[in-house]
Amino acid sequence: METLASAFIYRHTKVRITTERPTEFIDLTESLEALLAESRVLTGFVNVQSLHTTAAIVVNEGEPLLLDDFECFLRKTAPDDVPYLHDDETIRTVNLSPGERPNGSSHCRALVLGTSACLNIVNGRLMLGRWQRVFLAELDGPRSRDISVLVIGEAAQ
Amino acid sequence: METLASAFIYRHTKVRITTERPTEFIDLTESLEALLAESRVLTGFVNVQSLHTTAAIVVNEGEPLLLDDFECFLRKTAPDDVPYLHDDETIRTVNLSPGERPNGSSHCRALVLGTSACLNIVNGRLMLGRWQRVFLAELDGPRSRDISVLVIGEAAQ
Amino acid sequence: METLASAFIYRHTKVRITTERPTEFIDLTESLEALLAESRVLTGFVNVQSLHTTAAIVVNEGEPLLLDDFECFLRKTAPDDVPYLHDDETIRTVNLSPGERPNGSSHCRALVLGTSACLNIVNGRLMLGRWQRVFLAELDGPRSRDISVLVIGEAAQ
Repeated sequence: METLASAFIYRHTKVRITTERPTEFIDLTESLEALLAESRVLTGFVNVQSLHTTAAIVVNEGEPLLLDDFECFLRKTAPDDVPYLHDDETIRTVNLSPGERPNGSSHCRALVLGTSACLNIVNGRLMLGRWQRVFLAELDGPRSRDISVLVIGEAAQ
Repeated sequence: METLASAFIYRHTKVRITTERPTEFIDLTESLEALLAESRVLTGFVNVQSLHTTAAIVVNEGEPLLLDDFECFLRKTAPDDVPYLHDDETIRTVNLSPGERPNGSSHCRALVLGTSACLNIVNGRLMLGRWQRVFLAELDGPRSRDISVLVIGEAAQ
Repeated sequence: METLASAFIYRHTKVRITTERPTEFIDLTESLEALLAESRVLTGFVNVQSLHTTAAIVVNEGEPLLLDDFECFLRKTAPDDVPYLHDDETIRTVNLSPGERPNGSSHCRALVLGTSACLNIVNGRLMLGRWQRVFLAELDGPRSRDISVLVIGEAAQ
């Protein structure tokens, strides 16, 4: 335990990513580590937040076949081939955008994955286990996506 | 990046909500924005935490038909019509309350949705994308529910 | 609302746990409360983070039959008896460890449960509802597991 003096700092960054496929896991880990290094925070939290309702933030292993398994798992969990009221333009009354895609399944997948991940920073490093990587989970791509990354903590002297 | 001087502040609020249906999504966004404005925090985190094991905090779109889709999706994910040991009063030995409802399915739904959401505050505003809203997800209503909202960050001068 | 003076403190702890079964819910609540008491933090956040990709952090009720229901629910959500590409050693090329177990299902279960839980601290106490307990969810045990616990907040005078 250490008392923090006045050198408490923060750094906010918006990261923009262009996804290329309907479902895609974009590894953010190196970008986050670079932001952390720039921030000079030694101990604190980084909260990584998707600014979208059909894209999530997840932490898991970056093994390519596993990411394919995740896609398959999500498609089974919230299938595309069942009806979603959200996709029925004959009954929708609000939040309609021109050219909106049917994406009720994408919203359901995002709901179980979650919007943000709060991770610990210790000794100036993102606390991650050996296999852990931080991903933007694109669930309704391709799209342009924005991620809000806020680092708050004790600064290096 | 800016160094925070001594004006680091916090504000904790308990929000009480009375739900009216078995499954219900209560939009907390405006209440959270009002708490943020009162707190005078410019940059920081707000952690919104359900104090219940059958009510969750989720972030997604507030389109009414989509919320119906979410209810349908949750009922398929953890159905009511399969047996849950938790609901078998002939074998339960602990945590029993008088008049307890069968709610094993509600607990399973809460498990995948999550208890809290940590969101970023930047320039005194809750960082939310165009369609994002913050909800209490009632999964075993109607009930009285308490939500703990803690805002911590740099204060406006 | 109160202004925090200079007494902002943190405490980071790594908790090691040895699990004994393939699926197991280890109650961390008392350990977390002890760490909080040692930290002397009165108001702040504790972020509890699994450092593994097949173990999650969840908050729910510690009723033993319910924990059995959770295990059953997770086995249905991501079954063991469907093929996972991640478990096919004839096509895997990266992240292979000697003696690796087939655990694609464990990764999928971890994906929906989540890696960390951020919880509020108020008046020196972990904010938890009557039935809430914090668990490490072991999804690919038995194993040795590390949990990163970071407490940050205002110190007691």
